[in-house]
Amino acid sequence: MKDWLRFSVAFWHTFRGTGADPFGVPTKLWPWEDGTNSLAMAKRRMRANFEFIDKLGVDRWCFHDRDIAPDGKILPETNANLDEIVALAKELQGTKIRPLWGTAQLFMHPRYMHGAATSPEVGVYAYAAAQVKKAIEVTHYLGGENFVFWGGREGYQTLLNTDMKRELDHMATFLKAAVDWKKKIGFNGTLLIEPKPQEPTKHQYDWDAATTISFLQKYGLQDEFKLNIECNHATLSGHSCHHELETARINGLLGNIDANTGDPQIGWDTDQFLTDIGEATLVMLSVVRNGGLAPGGFNFDAKLRRESTDVEDLFLGHISGMDTLARGLRNVAKLIEDGSLDELVKKRYQSFDTELGALIEAGNADFETLETKAMEWGEPTVPSGKQELAEIIFQSAL
Amino acid sequence: MKDWLRFSVAFWHTFRGTGADPFGVPTKLWPWEDGTNSLAMAKRRMRANFEFIDKLGVDRWCFHDRDIAPDGKILPETNANLDEIVALAKELQGTKIRPLWGTAQLFMHPRYMHGAATSPEVGVYAYAAAQVKKAIEVTHYLGGENFVFWGGREGYQTLLNTDMKRELDHMATFLKAAVDWKKKIGFNGTLLIEPKPQEPTKHQYDWDAATTISFLQKYGLQDEFKLNIECNHATLSGHSCHHELETARINGLLGNIDANTGDPQIGWDTDQFLTDIGEATLVMLSVVRNGGLAPGGFNFDAKLRRESTDVEDLFLGHISGMDTLARGLRNVAKLIEDGSLDELVKKRYQSFDTELGALIEAGNADFETLETKAMEWGEPTVPSGKQELAEIIFQSAL
Amino acid sequence: MKDWLRFSVAFWHTFRGTGADPFGVPTKLWPWEDGTNSLAMAKRRMRANFEFIDKLGVDRWCFHDRDIAPDGKILPETNANLDEIVALAKELQGTKIRPLWGTAQLFMHPRYMHGAATSPEVGVYAYAAAQVKKAIEVTHYLGGENFVFWGGREGYQTLLNTDMKRELDHMATFLKAAVDWKKKIGFNGTLLIEPKPQEPTKHQYDWDAATTISFLQKYGLQDEFKLNIECNHATLSGHSCHHELETARINGLLGNIDANTGDPQIGWDTDQFLTDIGEATLVMLSVVRNGGLAPGGFNFDAKLRRESTDVEDLFLGHISGMDTLARGLRNVAKLIEDGSLDELVKKRYQSFDTELGALIEAGNADFETLETKAMEWGEPTVPSGKQELAEIIFQSAL
Amino acid sequence: MKDWLRFSVAFWHTFRGTGADPFGVPTKLWPWEDGTNSLAMAKRRMRANFEFIDKLGVDRWCFHDRDIAPDGKILPETNANLDEIVALAKELQGTKIRPLWGTAQLFMHPRYMHGAATSPEVGVYAYAAAQVKKAIEVTHYLGGENFVFWGGREGYQTLLNTDMKRELDHMATFLKAAVDWKKKIGFNGTLLIEPKPQEPTKHQYDWDAATTISFLQKYGLQDEFKLNIECNHATLSGHSCHHELETARINGLLGNIDANTGDPQIGWDTDQFLTDIGEATLVMLSVVRNGGLAPGGFNFDAKLRRESTDVEDLFLGHISGMDTLARGLRNVAKLIEDGSLDELVKKRYQSFDTELGALIEAGNADFETLETKAMEWGEPTVPSGKQELAEIIFQSAL
Repeated sequence: MKDWLRFSVAFWHTFRGTGADPFGVPTKLWPWEDGTNSLAMAKRRMRANFEFIDKLGVDRWCFHDRDIAPDGKILPETNANLDEIVALAKELQGTKIRPLWGTAQLFMHPRYMHGAATSPEVGVYAYAAAQVKKAIEVTHYLGGENFVFWGGREGYQTLLNTDMKRELDHMATFLKAAVDWKKKIGFNGTLLIEPKPQEPTKHQYDWDAATTISFLQKYGLQDEFKLNIECNHATLSGHSCHHELETARINGLLGNIDANTGDPQIGWDTDQFLTDIGEATLVMLSVVRNGGLAPGGFNFDAKLRRESTDVEDLFLGHISGMDTLARGLRNVAKLIEDGSLDELVKKRYQSFDTELGALIEAGNADFETLETKAMEWGEPTVPSGKQELAEIIFQSAL
Repeated sequence: MKDWLRFSVAFWHTFRGTGADPFGVPTKLWPWEDGTNSLAMAKRRMRANFEFIDKLGVDRWCFHDRDIAPDGKILPETNANLDEIVALAKELQGTKIRPLWGTAQLFMHPRYMHGAATSPEVGVYAYAAAQVKKAIEVTHYLGGENFVFWGGREGYQTLLNTDMKRELDHMATFLKAAVDWKKKIGFNGTLLIEPKPQEPTKHQYDWDAATTISFLQKYGLQDEFKLNIECNHATLSGHSCHHELETARINGLLGNIDANTGDPQIGWDTDQFLTDIGEATLVMLSVVRNGGLAPGGFNFDAKLRRESTDVEDLFLGHISGMDTLARGLRNVAKLIEDGSLDELVKKRYQSFDTELGALIEAGNADFETLETKAMEWGEPTVPSGKQELAEIIFQSAL
Repeated sequence: MKDWLRFSVAFWHTFRGTGADPFGVPTKLWPWEDGTNSLAMAKRRMRANFEFIDKLGVDRWCFHDRDIAPDGKILPETNANLDEIVALAKELQGTKIRPLWGTAQLFMHPRYMHGAATSPEVGVYAYAAAQVKKAIEVTHYLGGENFVFWGGREGYQTLLNTDMKRELDHMATFLKAAVDWKKKIGFNGTLLIEPKPQEPTKHQYDWDAATTISFLQKYGLQDEFKLNIECNHATLSGHSCHHELETARINGLLGNIDANTGDPQIGWDTDQFLTDIGEATLVMLSVVRNGGLAPGGFNFDAKLRRESTDVEDLFLGHISGMDTLARGLRNVAKLIEDGSLDELVKKRYQSFDTELGALIEAGNADFETLETKAMEWGEPTVPSGKQELAEIIFQSAL
Repeated sequence: MKDWLRFSVAFWHTFRGTGADPFGVPTKLWPWEDGTNSLAMAKRRMRANFEFIDKLGVDRWCFHDRDIAPDGKILPETNANLDEIVALAKELQGTKIRPLWGTAQLFMHPRYMHGAATSPEVGVYAYAAAQVKKAIEVTHYLGGENFVFWGGREGYQTLLNTDMKRELDHMATFLKAAVDWKKKIGFNGTLLIEPKPQEPTKHQYDWDAATTISFLQKYGLQDEFKLNIECNHATLSGHSCHHELETARINGLLGNIDANTGDPQIGWDTDQFLTDIGEATLVMLSVVRNGGLAPGGFNFDAKLRRESTDVEDLFLGHISGMDTLARGLRNVAKLIEDGSLDELVKKRYQSFDTELGALIEAGNADFETLETKAMEWGEPTVPSGKQELAEIIFQSAL
């Protein structure tokens, strides 16, 4: 079970989540916080992180560079702060714990308000490059298995002031440079792009899996990146999480899952812990078909509700997330043992497991050949899609 | 003005639209209809079509094969019916009128309930091929300038019973065979794919422009197809129409526009005539940037409201659609003459019109170079995005 | 279990559902259909209905007047047709089976295209009154326990051509006349209004539970009607089904449930059989808190997918709907026995189970009294909302 | 024009809006800010507010208690701070400027995380009462014409931990106490409730106009409150702004407008300045039909985009908002002078301007009378709804 469920704690939600929202100030007053953003506080917080990971019994964590260490006045100072914290983290990791992935936070600071790689300011592009360079280095140093790009502000607020083509071109040159850097320093981790349709921008360039694949293909990057699919981002883009996972999977690009869920009636990212066993079963179905996620895993990119203010709640949230996915995996095992759902699907397509089917699938059936067949066969018979039966089989496994 | 606004009447909405909806039977009782689906009726209807086109003063029309001629009992009979009607249409077209495009209706008949090119039944795939083969032929015969694929049922209702990868592969082999056929018969018109996110299916494979581009790239079809962007389909997929047009345009794939609009509070295709001059101005902005749409144009894929039952209403709808786009074009002319919106955008990116900018855009700025610059420059200055100013400039032109 | 789960078969979906959708013609070819809309066919169909009900083992059915019997040329003939079918239905019902409810279909016919009670045409208002009069009579005759109003076209397509106030006033006078008629003929069944936000109209006046309650209160009808909550209508209006049920319940107006579900990513009524056990558990939670639904029940206002064309599928759909709700009821029993969820909620409000709480709840705590208390107490303590814990308790029961 | 367009500057967006969002820190560095939340800073900010109002040339402003003055350590200190700032504001108002309305900010502080009037903690209820008491007093002192309740956290995050009935009862007793206090101190301003469907809560009890009216009626408060309709809140609830305005108006409850707009593709409150002249014309149509809004007006509850960081942008945003509504008013004047849209609507309902229509509208037409008429008349004729014509008339006025 552990091999399939490579869980990871998200440092930002669990240790930097304050409970603030657009209409409210922070509500979390964790006992280890002293109200400052100092280096000393960053260290105490990092110790709390590893204590939590240890108590929870997981082996992985994920972080943004800027969440684990405070900004300095200038970039070299910021980098020095980061080095100091990363050294501590390495020590605390010991032999067992590793980052599932690291990432660069390129969206909180005002300098990134128009984007990072897609900012109209060349100075911001350069600054972002320097930041990603360093973030890949520290991820590599910590033994991270992946590095994620979430382009929170790589998009636009209005097309009226935006040169979309130029911005997309810049995003591509930036990512190519990241690939070069990764290779130069010998980092063998997977680079992952995390699609999200919008928020904070009106339109984010990595809208969904298909849009991101389109971008990667256009710029020849499809062999260098995989996707990190987040369930709440999926539903915000109008897709089921299962759809996004399958889209990534059948394109050979399913690399990691941000295991959370949204509220189907809410139009912003709620980042809730996944508790729906039906959805968890569909998620695990994609994972099993993918042969697992390694070197990727399940990052709990999920936060307590603003009103959940007990330290206990941090544990409850993660435990419910882990239990739900574990129940999902057990359900998938039942479905596979039973076999009738797979059988139903296979049977639907059996008319293509024929001579003509093979000709078509090899790309060798031209319209004249097909017309001849159609004339010869007359009206085709079309059996029931058996959706209700498929749903019963699926629900019975829950 | 005529060169920019290549309008086309959509036969199906205007002459086969009945006013039926999922909760109501037909409401339109056009005087030329006799209540049958006979060949004679198809001819009278085609004459009505050309009388309408003539009175409206446009030069183009669009059609589905199955809307202009009735099904026969078997395919050869259906094809014969089609030939008879097409011969009449050719005669009625005279020297002035031509199809903007033709298309094959692969969604109404029960045989297509699981899809056409993506049906799990090989017999349906073959039948669809025969139908598209013929539809391309008649479009070519009539002098059509484009041929459209709208995959209304190329998608799924549930992933539980679907092999998405196999279906997408089939869709690609089908479209490749269509390309081959087009070339074989010397049809030089553009092949267009029309994205739509869903309805009637839960998920349509041509979800939006980016998804369709992703598909075309994956299967090496990006040089053989362009996109037909429909505004209502854009809004259903969570994008503005302007976004979809720009996405197609900057990928060199903007081929045609289905000029209609949806209601932003409605989650299905309402196919209304576009009456919003703001939206029309944004549409025309993309068209002008594209250097026009020819050989594509504006197809009024729009229908009267179910409750609009006067023949006069058919004229009113089309006139409002034409006037609105004409107002949009005039507004674009004002914006271009004024120049301040273009200037605002150009100025935003001027920091890339520099030596470092050129190095980046050429793909030659590696992370080390950029880091050096970032360290040297210190904190970048980031000017206002001037969105409110851009909006004032834009609105002032309306 | 039977007392809680008063299931009913919906005649229209199961026996008049054809599989047609806005982009496709009928797909269902049930063996008992002869392709006509004759009186003889109506009788054969009614026999099939009771055979199905019998095989399924339920005791109730629901019908629209116009679905069970064909229209005549004039209203008296239509009424005569209806009488003939109803007589047969009464016979077939025997001693065990009764309508859960009847209703008048006031939306399919073109005469109702602008609404029935809210049509701008007084002749349509009168016709609708005559139709509802008769429909209440036949429901009474058949021993129906409720009568439902779903105002499919009581709304508007655009406010530009609508006098909303006048239409709402008409709707109220119409419903008052229905109440009078019900009383006059001694029909003791409950009158139910079924909210839906839109589709087919852009805005339906009975948008959701709260809107409908607002209407009933304004016109003094709140003691004469209850609500029929449909889950798919709930989600279309932006609410969870549980929210709509609770809104009806705490206003004493929960009368019946249209037991179906929608797809959270789809913006139209998909009317699927409910298969989600989490949602079913929430539904049953409201039902149990309501002390059951009698004389209301669960109407399967759900249809097979268009692609499900086997007779067997009709059984599968209903069985999955029944099983899912039964699982929901068992889960509620577990939650009640466990008691910890109720306890969690009760404890959250315990500060109001005090002297000051009682004063407030009696409406006797003025702002001066409260200010004095606030000054005296200083900053209030606010405990965690324990949402994650509540979710764990809930999910553990599934 | 000034009488119709009673504009007001919203202190919070314009002077406390920082540009922060859930993914970014503040971006606005106004020259008058010193980075503190001191009383001295509050005074400088208030002077900036009146300088801005003066330069903009408007006569009204709106404020939250907690935005104009800093919190003290305890409530009496907070009230003293507020008094000091309010005294300054009164002096700066002079004889010309007055608050359009004041309101109490009951959502930012952690004490209100579960709600204020609907908090499960009685101490929070009392604290909120003390705060509203004071806020009404200072609004009265400043000559405010209205007082607004926006229940940002009066709602729930999950029904699992919520006693919705008890919370709604508490909200009603709270509002009744507010009415009593208003009367006791002789404040004659209008009390307004501002509906919003959700955000920050999953469900806000004042979901939309109809829901709020339902609440007011249930608790007998409909004569004591009017509604403050915000356009962006309207669209978030699935309605057009025009629909919400008309719903308030025909119930005699249209009191004020929060003049902003949302993005139809975005599921959260974007609070943009209204720039769409079509929407502005519909807004003004409701206002003119309402005989104006006085003592209410148009509050610019709108904020600059996060990326708009020039002081100039503050002016540009407000100017575009004012100009757009002024254009809307001029368009309404054109529509009224032209008269054809009113005529079209009036004509649609003329069949009710008859003897039978009068009988129905008086509530005196029973079903037997109506059935007799329906039988006598036969099939009613139903004319076209002329939606396209109505749209042409409307658009021609823009």
